[in-house]
Amino acid sequence: MKPVDYMAVAQTAIQKIKSGAFLTVRAGDRLNTMTIGWATIGFCWRKPVFMVAVRDSRHTFTIIEDAADYTVSVPSGDMKDAIMYCGTKSGRDGDKFAACGLKTLAGQTVASPVIDVPGIHIECRIVLKTAMDPALMAADFAGLYPEKDYHTLYFGEITACYET
Amino acid sequence: MKPVDYMAVAQTAIQKIKSGAFLTVRAGDRLNTMTIGWATIGFCWRKPVFMVAVRDSRHTFTIIEDAADYTVSVPSGDMKDAIMYCGTKSGRDGDKFAACGLKTLAGQTVASPVIDVPGIHIECRIVLKTAMDPALMAADFAGLYPEKDYHTLYFGEITACYET
Repeated sequence: MKPVDYMAVAQTAIQKIKSGAFLTVRAGDRLNTMTIGWATIGFCWRKPVFMVAVRDSRHTFTIIEDAADYTVSVPSGDMKDAIMYCGTKSGRDGDKFAACGLKTLAGQTVASPVIDVPGIHIECRIVLKTAMDPALMAADFAGLYPEKDYHTLYFGEITACYET
Repeated sequence: MKPVDYMAVAQTAIQKIKSGAFLTVRAGDRLNTMTIGWATIGFCWRKPVFMVAVRDSRHTFTIIEDAADYTVSVPSGDMKDAIMYCGTKSGRDGDKFAACGLKTLAGQTVASPVIDVPGIHIECRIVLKTAMDPALMAADFAGLYPEKDYHTLYFGEITACYET
């Protein structure tokens, strides 16, 4: 585990996340991981921050709403099959970790674990949630929400960032 | 004017923004610039995105609420005096451009101009606004808002990014 500056890896991380990364969330004894393809990173409220978006129709939404933190694991290698599975199957219907052979490692600073794969791992304490208001979004976003299952945005204070 | 990849300059831009950058907004014939110290950058809604935060007590808030776009100019040189002025004086009380000797250049893709200084310039079309809900923010943020003038978050689709 090698600590890295979060902005030094931002370009690589955002580029790789476009092809899929794992958002992993634990709340009590509930744990799930899902594929994300979007994120932002920067500095706000005097803190290093990361933002992920979760649709309110997702199983992960029911967990992250009760969670204090989340992690993002950005694999350096090819994990297309697991990325596809975790982006299309729901944790409501089965254990994605078992189905994909994914193991977890305890978070360094948060309750949510990271996925035990080589890559960049970002641990975040949730510091702000904001639900998207469709009245305040661009008209051309409508095509992203045919089911009107809008995203809630979770801003996390980055509490650890490292490579494995 | 040299076009640059927005994530290739993200580390430099976020680092410099911490010391102050200019957020410039035009709505009709109203124009203002203010100092920002926070921003996030990444990819969301299938678009390159940038986020800035504006307190609802700010003169810029009254303009950006009616605007379609904004720009961020991140000076490469030392502009401490103008950064200080534009972060502490209000456009309600006078013309900050005249007071600081700041000139503008027309935006390449948006109605808001950029500040005519050497640096990185990011032009954004506003695609989502979300007001902060204090009930959904971390308790340790309270110290940032003694006047309860919370930020509204403006997500912009990056329509141009270049160095001058």
